[in-house]
Amino acid sequence: MAESRMAAEIREIPAAVARMLDGIAAIDAAAAAIAARDPRVVVTIARGSSDHAAGYFKYACELLAGVPVASVGPSVASVYGARLHLPGAVSLAISQSGQSPDLLALQRTARHGGALTVAITNHPDSPLGRDADHCIALDAGAELSVAATKTFAASVAATLALLARWRGDRAFDAAVAALPAALDTALGCDWGALATRLEPAGSLYVLGRGPAHAIGGEIALKFKETCGLHAEAHSAAEVLHGPAELAAGGFPVLALAAGDAAEPQVRETAARLASQGAEVYLSAAAEAPLRALPAVGGLHPLLAPLALVVPAYLCAETLARRRGLDPDAPRNLSKVTITR
Amino acid sequence: MAESRMAAEIREIPAAVARMLDGIAAIDAAAAAIAARDPRVVVTIARGSSDHAAGYFKYACELLAGVPVASVGPSVASVYGARLHLPGAVSLAISQSGQSPDLLALQRTARHGGALTVAITNHPDSPLGRDADHCIALDAGAELSVAATKTFAASVAATLALLARWRGDRAFDAAVAALPAALDTALGCDWGALATRLEPAGSLYVLGRGPAHAIGGEIALKFKETCGLHAEAHSAAEVLHGPAELAAGGFPVLALAAGDAAEPQVRETAARLASQGAEVYLSAAAEAPLRALPAVGGLHPLLAPLALVVPAYLCAETLARRRGLDPDAPRNLSKVTITR
Repeated sequence: MAESRMAAEIREIPAAVARMLDGIAAIDAAAAAIAARDPRVVVTIARGSSDHAAGYFKYACELLAGVPVASVGPSVASVYGARLHLPGAVSLAISQSGQSPDLLALQRTARHGGALTVAITNHPDSPLGRDADHCIALDAGAELSVAATKTFAASVAATLALLARWRGDRAFDAAVAALPAALDTALGCDWGALATRLEPAGSLYVLGRGPAHAIGGEIALKFKETCGLHAEAHSAAEVLHGPAELAAGGFPVLALAAGDAAEPQVRETAARLASQGAEVYLSAAAEAPLRALPAVGGLHPLLAPLALVVPAYLCAETLARRRGLDPDAPRNLSKVTITR
Repeated sequence: MAESRMAAEIREIPAAVARMLDGIAAIDAAAAAIAARDPRVVVTIARGSSDHAAGYFKYACELLAGVPVASVGPSVASVYGARLHLPGAVSLAISQSGQSPDLLALQRTARHGGALTVAITNHPDSPLGRDADHCIALDAGAELSVAATKTFAASVAATLALLARWRGDRAFDAAVAALPAALDTALGCDWGALATRLEPAGSLYVLGRGPAHAIGGEIALKFKETCGLHAEAHSAAEVLHGPAELAAGGFPVLALAAGDAAEPQVRETAARLASQGAEVYLSAAAEAPLRALPAVGGLHPLLAPLALVVPAYLCAETLARRRGLDPDAPRNLSKVTITR
């Protein structure tokens, strides 16, 4: 069987991120404009995988810059026609295609309200890219699989590079520059044991906290899109406020331990769910009843969660094929989704 | 069989909301302080059902006041110990018990950062309530069922009353004052057909847009907590960016049409998912292949979504019993969840 495009595009992730980082001039220009604005709030504009990239940025921005990030539903502009008051704010739109009219409507509403607009897209000549005050091109190359993979990783990396330059944080900037190497190592992490467990599964929870929670959302979406598996992401704390009820009787759980300050709490939740009967896989060394999955160690705590997406993507691609599905072409989806 | 506490507490919703509105002096005081602050951003602090109330407020605030609302993960304070810069901001914490230390940590971090802090809780003498600059008591009475119902409705209503008074919007304020009557009518809407369909179900999508999306999150959580059903909420637009892949082959979908500007798009998504094989229930008049569920008509567009939660709660309670579960006492949950 010929390799899927999805598998090929996952393996292009390190090179795609490196190419994106080569376009540092556009990132620097946007970062300087944001620094000059000194925003009280950043508004993000995104859908699907790009919205998970925005969720990652939200944690990174709040943790590194202390500036709150509001993910505004595009409907606020496109459906309800509301006006936003955004003096001194920054809007950050993320979209692979840059074509969805609802994202464009919200970006325009943000500018009308006074925001500096920054767009990150793989198609800088798209309506969204052309409309923004600053546009950062992903330069990830054509992405032909319906499920986004390399554009997601490049989008997250672009927001982190932007944050590092905006804040003038040289240590973090250097860590971001080393991302391609880390992502390359991550390609060698084999989560095949999880794919095997999930072959007959109907449901899955993906748990994380902080930036790893955003990665959980992206992983869950990929299992939905390519494997027809009802995977759902929860914060490792939030899950205890209700969703934990289901995590018993062999219910599969993927807990994302990312080597940051949240790891002890993620492990605590993982152990609790295992004790009530869930089958819990942890992305770190673990003892029974937890099942360990390999991950890249020693990364910056704001980057380690991103590296976890790589073996998870490979796992979803494997699982899709084992379930007799074509990972490149889900039955009910198309590459560019137009929503209003 | 004796009536469950959950059913009794659902039927107390109109009275609980009316009692909360009787405490309008505290709401007025908080509203005046928010108006004086003229915030550029509102930061919400909540978990579980209360976080869905915060999500409802987010839409209402962005649509009515044009002020962006950032839901900040409690971990930002409690796990990562970050500092937030919130000059001129308002924080709004919502918690039934007011006891979870992570919420308190984030409220304190918000005040340290310069925010005016407002808490909404059923226990004003709790750590969260005592710590806030302004505390609004829900006065919903004791809630003994593990799954929150009347405190959720009262929380949403409290945020809407606060918004109406802050903005000096008399028309909206009058509509909020009429909420108890609308919620009482909603108690007569019978979603038993949905309960029957869901008896053998493993999964469910709950779709909405705008405030109805927040209600979707709350409904999905209730089905998880009380019925062990893997229900998940999606925006009726977002679902097309990936999750729609699963909505085929009889997959059950509940689409929340709420009579507001989003209803045409919700109906469009509902029809599309039905055409690819999903079994779609719509909370409004509908023709086959969509299945209609009754709802209260003629409500203010920012209130109609809240009224939908009432028949959905009753449906979850019915389904739990039919599935042989005790709706008052999920196996793996307790009433007060302490997270850090």
